[in-house]
Amino acid sequence: MTISNLGETVTLCGWVQKSRDLGGMTFIDIRDRYGITQLVFNMDDDQDLCKAARNLGREFVISATGMVVERSNKNLKIPTGEIEIKMTGLNVLNAAKLPPFLIEDETDGGDDLRMKYRYLDLRRNPVRNNMVLRHKMAQAVRRYLDAKDFIEVETPVLIKSTPEGARDFVVPSRMNPGEFYALPQSPQTFKQLLMVSGFDRYFQIVKCFRDEDLRADRQPEFTQIDCEMSFIEQEDILNVFEGLIRTLFKEIKGIDLPEVPRMQYSDAMRLYGSDKPDTRFGMQFTELNDVVKGKDFAVFDNAELVVGINAKGCAGYTRKQMDELTDFIRRPQIGGTGLIYMRHNEDGSLKSSVDKFYDEASLKLWAQAFNTEPGDLVLIMAGQKDKVRKQLNELRLEMGTRLGLRDKNTFSALWVLDFPLLEWDEESNRYHAMHHPFTSPKPEDIDMLDTAPGEVRANAYDMVINGTEIGGGSIRIHDRELQSLMFRHLGFSAEEAQKQFGFLMDAFEFGAPPHGGIAFGFDRLCSIFAGLDSIRDVIAFPKNNSGRDVMIDSPATIDQKQMNELKIRSVL
Amino acid sequence: MTISNLGETVTLCGWVQKSRDLGGMTFIDIRDRYGITQLVFNMDDDQDLCKAARNLGREFVISATGMVVERSNKNLKIPTGEIEIKMTGLNVLNAAKLPPFLIEDETDGGDDLRMKYRYLDLRRNPVRNNMVLRHKMAQAVRRYLDAKDFIEVETPVLIKSTPEGARDFVVPSRMNPGEFYALPQSPQTFKQLLMVSGFDRYFQIVKCFRDEDLRADRQPEFTQIDCEMSFIEQEDILNVFEGLIRTLFKEIKGIDLPEVPRMQYSDAMRLYGSDKPDTRFGMQFTELNDVVKGKDFAVFDNAELVVGINAKGCAGYTRKQMDELTDFIRRPQIGGTGLIYMRHNEDGSLKSSVDKFYDEASLKLWAQAFNTEPGDLVLIMAGQKDKVRKQLNELRLEMGTRLGLRDKNTFSALWVLDFPLLEWDEESNRYHAMHHPFTSPKPEDIDMLDTAPGEVRANAYDMVINGTEIGGGSIRIHDRELQSLMFRHLGFSAEEAQKQFGFLMDAFEFGAPPHGGIAFGFDRLCSIFAGLDSIRDVIAFPKNNSGRDVMIDSPATIDQKQMNELKIRSVL
Repeated sequence: MTISNLGETVTLCGWVQKSRDLGGMTFIDIRDRYGITQLVFNMDDDQDLCKAARNLGREFVISATGMVVERSNKNLKIPTGEIEIKMTGLNVLNAAKLPPFLIEDETDGGDDLRMKYRYLDLRRNPVRNNMVLRHKMAQAVRRYLDAKDFIEVETPVLIKSTPEGARDFVVPSRMNPGEFYALPQSPQTFKQLLMVSGFDRYFQIVKCFRDEDLRADRQPEFTQIDCEMSFIEQEDILNVFEGLIRTLFKEIKGIDLPEVPRMQYSDAMRLYGSDKPDTRFGMQFTELNDVVKGKDFAVFDNAELVVGINAKGCAGYTRKQMDELTDFIRRPQIGGTGLIYMRHNEDGSLKSSVDKFYDEASLKLWAQAFNTEPGDLVLIMAGQKDKVRKQLNELRLEMGTRLGLRDKNTFSALWVLDFPLLEWDEESNRYHAMHHPFTSPKPEDIDMLDTAPGEVRANAYDMVINGTEIGGGSIRIHDRELQSLMFRHLGFSAEEAQKQFGFLMDAFEFGAPPHGGIAFGFDRLCSIFAGLDSIRDVIAFPKNNSGRDVMIDSPATIDQKQMNELKIRSVL
Repeated sequence: MTISNLGETVTLCGWVQKSRDLGGMTFIDIRDRYGITQLVFNMDDDQDLCKAARNLGREFVISATGMVVERSNKNLKIPTGEIEIKMTGLNVLNAAKLPPFLIEDETDGGDDLRMKYRYLDLRRNPVRNNMVLRHKMAQAVRRYLDAKDFIEVETPVLIKSTPEGARDFVVPSRMNPGEFYALPQSPQTFKQLLMVSGFDRYFQIVKCFRDEDLRADRQPEFTQIDCEMSFIEQEDILNVFEGLIRTLFKEIKGIDLPEVPRMQYSDAMRLYGSDKPDTRFGMQFTELNDVVKGKDFAVFDNAELVVGINAKGCAGYTRKQMDELTDFIRRPQIGGTGLIYMRHNEDGSLKSSVDKFYDEASLKLWAQAFNTEPGDLVLIMAGQKDKVRKQLNELRLEMGTRLGLRDKNTFSALWVLDFPLLEWDEESNRYHAMHHPFTSPKPEDIDMLDTAPGEVRANAYDMVINGTEIGGGSIRIHDRELQSLMFRHLGFSAEEAQKQFGFLMDAFEFGAPPHGGIAFGFDRLCSIFAGLDSIRDVIAFPKNNSGRDVMIDSPATIDQKQMNELKIRSVL
């Protein structure tokens, strides 16, 4: 309903957002999926109608009929703000109790209350808009992939548990007592089988499941854009899916995302201390081993790596601010020990926290290494290489935030390439697949599988936006021998490998094409597009950190009869 | 690759369908997702290449390069049949073992073998075409509903078990020991909550789950097109979704499906003995109580209902054919006792199997009732009303099949309206909801809930195509009082109702709009469009009748460690 409907008689159905009674006139704001419209009731025109309007409470469901007229005091902020409806009829479709929190953009409801009454929280514009955004993104993804000849194929939800990877949710089978289905952590093996079937280009927007201890922003069920292609190389995948992401930015947000830069995993680690660098801002790492060692400063001399960043314009940081930064890197979850700094003062002088060991000539070399200008602050950490990189990454992100360099409406995407194939797991004392066991090693690195497994690079790639991994994939193994070799290196016996993945290795013997794919975290992608920190806000009915849906009160106990039929018992 | 590519150098990747070695020439048919292309290798041109081609086995994966040339003996049945590729390069991407059955439209593989090697079965054109059809239908459904302002919202898969309806699959919760999630039989309550949230028009193509003993054509996991609308009446739903089905027929099959006729449930039962009549052919029931009673024929005199059909043109059925029909209705799964017939012979005479009781004048009344012509055969059954209708329904379908009236390429859709709200369940000795407990009774029938519950009609509707229910829905209850009343009539105590569905009844108090919806069985819809009898053929990785996936060998036992973490134990 807009100014173009002037003079028309219309019927609106919706919820009472608020009402104002001015004696002779009563104004009601009615809210529907498309917005807010003002209804006007006049005592002079129809006393009964006006009195009925006065009895409407917040969130009553009404059907209201009247004529579209021009407003005297227009509200140009909303599409319906130029008009109002002069009421001739009113029908209460359902009364409403007072909701437990305000149904407005800014609500007074706490998290727990809003989750319990999620169906009321979903009435609020910001939450509803997230769902609409998600819908539009899903449709746009499908349009893009459909136009590129991808076929959406539904893979099964009741599959088989595998010991590799995260913990599975399992489902006892009544018809096969003592046996269990598992819910998929991803449709990985099925999409590979579809490639063996000749499906060439597959996709699916699909629910996946992981029974993990939930950190702040994990959900036991989540949604993937899952894709696979045959007869392709890594380059083809990067092109097709960079196209997808750029199309989404264009269609959904009207943003022309530039061509996505590419970076080796090893460079990402060296320059950002992270395999998912936030590239909205620079502040790349500078390694200082060559510059700082041999001056009798034990902290640096004993460190595997001395590395720092240049916080531009922060030379004026106060003692208090510097202490905050030191406290920040000393938090247990970061685990840093100390922070060394050098100020490049506005007057050109250089001042470090370790002047005892480094004279001005030395500091000049530092300044050179960081390419500092007057006003800059250099922050340096030292220690074991992997640890110090991780710690400095946290500090870099913190500085980016403090300097306002991480705007939610700025988007910077990056491909990270050539991940390691394997990573060492301290707990199980063996190598694990960094991506998954079906990822192919780079042919030129295969020889190192025996001699230096940790050095073997994989044909694996991630897409990162604003420091968040939104998708990852790999070129797969399509050869039985190589797949067996991989399982052996992952500590599977031949029997275990055959029992768990025999169907896939058998399939490889019947003419498997070269293939590869990628999966995007759809919840995460939506949350980034919505400018949100949490995926929970783009999920209609999310679960809390204990995996509970507090609205329907699930999980819950089940009948003994059900347990008996399933031939299981709880052992508490 | 078609005739328009003549002279181009191309590279094709695919599978070797077959090869013919003619000495100087070798022909290979290569198969990819789009079809078959003939590759030609000539000993005179390149001996080594030709020899390499001779070594290719069936289902080898190859990459083949050559020039597109015109074929001398064209095959106009396939799009690529006018051309062939004169080979200049060949690369074996993967060898293949001989597949366990022929990868051709007609295969020699039995059901079990094809299910075990489903990834090979999916290579066959008919199976792959089914998946492509399904993909196209899913995209068309989304396009139609998106254009009508429906929003696709994902509802959770890990929900709560409810005792009403079929058996749930359950998922033990590790984080909440002793408690279980359930997999949804449908997103019913969530879509109703989305209406309470003001989402107005919702849809989802969504996996649902039912732990039932599997009949021939049931799957433990299946897919629904699930929809709900607010501020609507039944008429709106019928229009929108009739539009969906007609759009699908037009876009997918190029068929102009006429406006879908509507029939009362009571009429469907009276005229077809079924709530899902196959309306591709007439042969409606004629009731004969007024015509046949009082002639001392006990079978008719004692029957609650005497009812028959006119099998046009079957007067010439032999004794053997009549015996077959009698045997048919006496099968245990049909349970008929006897079949009475009347032939309207070509010479105009009438001859019945009960001439002892009915003279020619009587038979003339029969002929009148059935509006017979010379050559017609009337088939009559008698007994308890509901049973005899069911039996005659089976006989009518059998006669339709025998007379070739049930062509898979003919489509007849029907709305069946005004289903009963409740149906009596002998086993539990109480009424059950015929649709589900959220279906609203017709307002004018509510008074009968206490006096004649079986007579109360619901605002419920099914869409039937060719005798198969492909969708059903209802206008829902949106009022707490009425919902409580319903639960009471279904044998729920107030406490049970609150425990199971309290969240929904609570939601109804916060401003629930009038709403209703529908769900289509997507697998079934696809199978009808594909002209198939079974939904299994439109599912990429179906399960067998024991709920097993024989390809991945699931369900399976799980580790004791997993059981311990989940705090459950098998009790076999």
